[in-house]
Amino acid sequence: MKKINKSIYYFSVLTILIAFTSCKEQTNAEESVVSNTVQPAEIKDPLPSWNEGKTKQAIVSFVNAVTDKNSADYVLPKDRIATFDNDGTLWAEQPVYAQLLFAFDRIKTLAPEHPEWKNKQPFKAVLENDQKTLMESGEKGILEIVAITHAGMSTNDFETIVNNWITVAKQPDPRFKDRLFTEMIYQPMLELLDYLRVNDFEVFIVSGGGIEFMRPWTEKVYGVPTQNVVGSSVQVAYDYNDGEPVLKRIAKVDFIDDKVGKPVGINSHIGKKPILAFGNSTGDQQMLEWSQSKGTKTFQGLVHHTDADREWAYGPDSHIGTFSDELMKKADSSGWHVVDMKTEWKVVFPSDLK
Amino acid sequence: MKKINKSIYYFSVLTILIAFTSCKEQTNAEESVVSNTVQPAEIKDPLPSWNEGKTKQAIVSFVNAVTDKNSADYVLPKDRIATFDNDGTLWAEQPVYAQLLFAFDRIKTLAPEHPEWKNKQPFKAVLENDQKTLMESGEKGILEIVAITHAGMSTNDFETIVNNWITVAKQPDPRFKDRLFTEMIYQPMLELLDYLRVNDFEVFIVSGGGIEFMRPWTEKVYGVPTQNVVGSSVQVAYDYNDGEPVLKRIAKVDFIDDKVGKPVGINSHIGKKPILAFGNSTGDQQMLEWSQSKGTKTFQGLVHHTDADREWAYGPDSHIGTFSDELMKKADSSGWHVVDMKTEWKVVFPSDLK
Repeated sequence: MKKINKSIYYFSVLTILIAFTSCKEQTNAEESVVSNTVQPAEIKDPLPSWNEGKTKQAIVSFVNAVTDKNSADYVLPKDRIATFDNDGTLWAEQPVYAQLLFAFDRIKTLAPEHPEWKNKQPFKAVLENDQKTLMESGEKGILEIVAITHAGMSTNDFETIVNNWITVAKQPDPRFKDRLFTEMIYQPMLELLDYLRVNDFEVFIVSGGGIEFMRPWTEKVYGVPTQNVVGSSVQVAYDYNDGEPVLKRIAKVDFIDDKVGKPVGINSHIGKKPILAFGNSTGDQQMLEWSQSKGTKTFQGLVHHTDADREWAYGPDSHIGTFSDELMKKADSSGWHVVDMKTEWKVVFPSDLK
Repeated sequence: MKKINKSIYYFSVLTILIAFTSCKEQTNAEESVVSNTVQPAEIKDPLPSWNEGKTKQAIVSFVNAVTDKNSADYVLPKDRIATFDNDGTLWAEQPVYAQLLFAFDRIKTLAPEHPEWKNKQPFKAVLENDQKTLMESGEKGILEIVAITHAGMSTNDFETIVNNWITVAKQPDPRFKDRLFTEMIYQPMLELLDYLRVNDFEVFIVSGGGIEFMRPWTEKVYGVPTQNVVGSSVQVAYDYNDGEPVLKRIAKVDFIDDKVGKPVGINSHIGKKPILAFGNSTGDQQMLEWSQSKGTKTFQGLVHHTDADREWAYGPDSHIGTFSDELMKKADSSGWHVVDMKTEWKVVFPSDLK
């Protein structure tokens, strides 16, 4: 799966945002969350699914510092930009990126219109669930699959296709039988997103996944509207179409929002450095470097997948969400916060709360 | 100036944004602005610099319809996206785009480091204010000037250069002696932006001008933060730079946010169609078409420059901000609102209020 996973990293999924607001009511709410001791217990703890520990303390301490007007580290709401990777940071990315399964499912759906695929690789391998042959088709094969499943239609039609898929597609691991991909999201991260938004942060998703694969559902699932989603993209072309204008998706990569692409995507879409950046793999290193170079107080976090029982455990040897030894060293020397999922998260998925 | 102006349209300037907010206090404020008759007079009229007339009525009626929860045309705040062109829509674009003058001034500033420019076109022509020779250098000459003035530095350094220029650069027309470019903004449009924001619209600038030429000042001048500015761009490349990461600006066009590029830029940055779109020239036609194709109630506006006394009067024959006869016909047949600056605006610039 090495080659497939690598080239497909760029076509994964999803999500986060919130509008920054200068509304005073919200600022008051924020203050009561973090400092008012007469509030009910559930309001006092903005991160109930996080165990007391170094990361939780560091997050709360950071948010307090940048939102306290009397702090030397105070940051105006307009500059409280937070960026989150999606795959492996906000939702599960194992055993394989949802966007890749979307592509395979799409091939199966389209198969009746393409009888020739029965005898044509790499489509034949997809239809027969022949992983070995699929692997042998390499990057070229995957790009053929992506071209046919992600391009050739209007942006509107693609949105409908994604919506239809994401509302029924299920996580393939038998441990999570019948769980939708959108239910494989991390409860502690949802709380973090909310906590930041209550504190007037504007939350963005900055993912290697396809921007138009994520946007149809990020608002519903994470509260992140389309305008706060940054991702990889294909080229599109405007067509006036007799007064019913459409943007046609073209089978040509426009932008890869991964590794060095993440600071580029942040610059293009946001135009300022995030004061908080969260990822989980080597693909996020440059985003965290970019955040830390801001020059004011910043926070960098990395989800470390250490929980084989409740989720998955993987690191330097994984082809999905690789967390290399170099990244660990870099995190250590840079003061980045590595979240040990097993010990720092009370629950992993929202369903664990039930 | 034809060729110069055409190729330089893509390097103009500026501006607008606001965060959409779900804050109830703001919703209440909005209601009082548009419906509460016991409010003081200045709150009752959200557009005091607009004469009573068809456009003002249409704007207020549109905003009332999409913000009234009991209206069939009600739109959720998250979908109240408004996009504004900048040059000629939010600020003056005559007698020449500010961004072009920025490029020329930059050549003059850099000249001491380039003694060879004294004898090398097109730089010689810029240094000698030789418009005729400059025109003869055509698109190739302009691109040379743009490459040297807009690329080769980090995004950070470019921001500093723009900031230093925009705070002192003055409008060249002697009628507006000593007026900064950022003072040549339209008071009625500033009121419109505020009116929309109070009504929970998220306001974006979608301009052919350079995205990084606008962002340093759009927040201060229009209240539009960097993340809500869409514009033309050059390519950038990430450089780790020994732990001080930078994005280097490369002398290669990445994206032209004009004409068919505007729906593409809107799709890339915002991911949904604007329910209100405002422009002033043929470069805005596709943005307005894109907005109108949303399928719900939408508003399209075009500023028509008809006031030679207070501003400039120009239309189909102008190479800057061309308002072609075809565009006028299209506006007429599509129900787009053409703003007659001369009769519909009480004042043009903020300084007229004094």
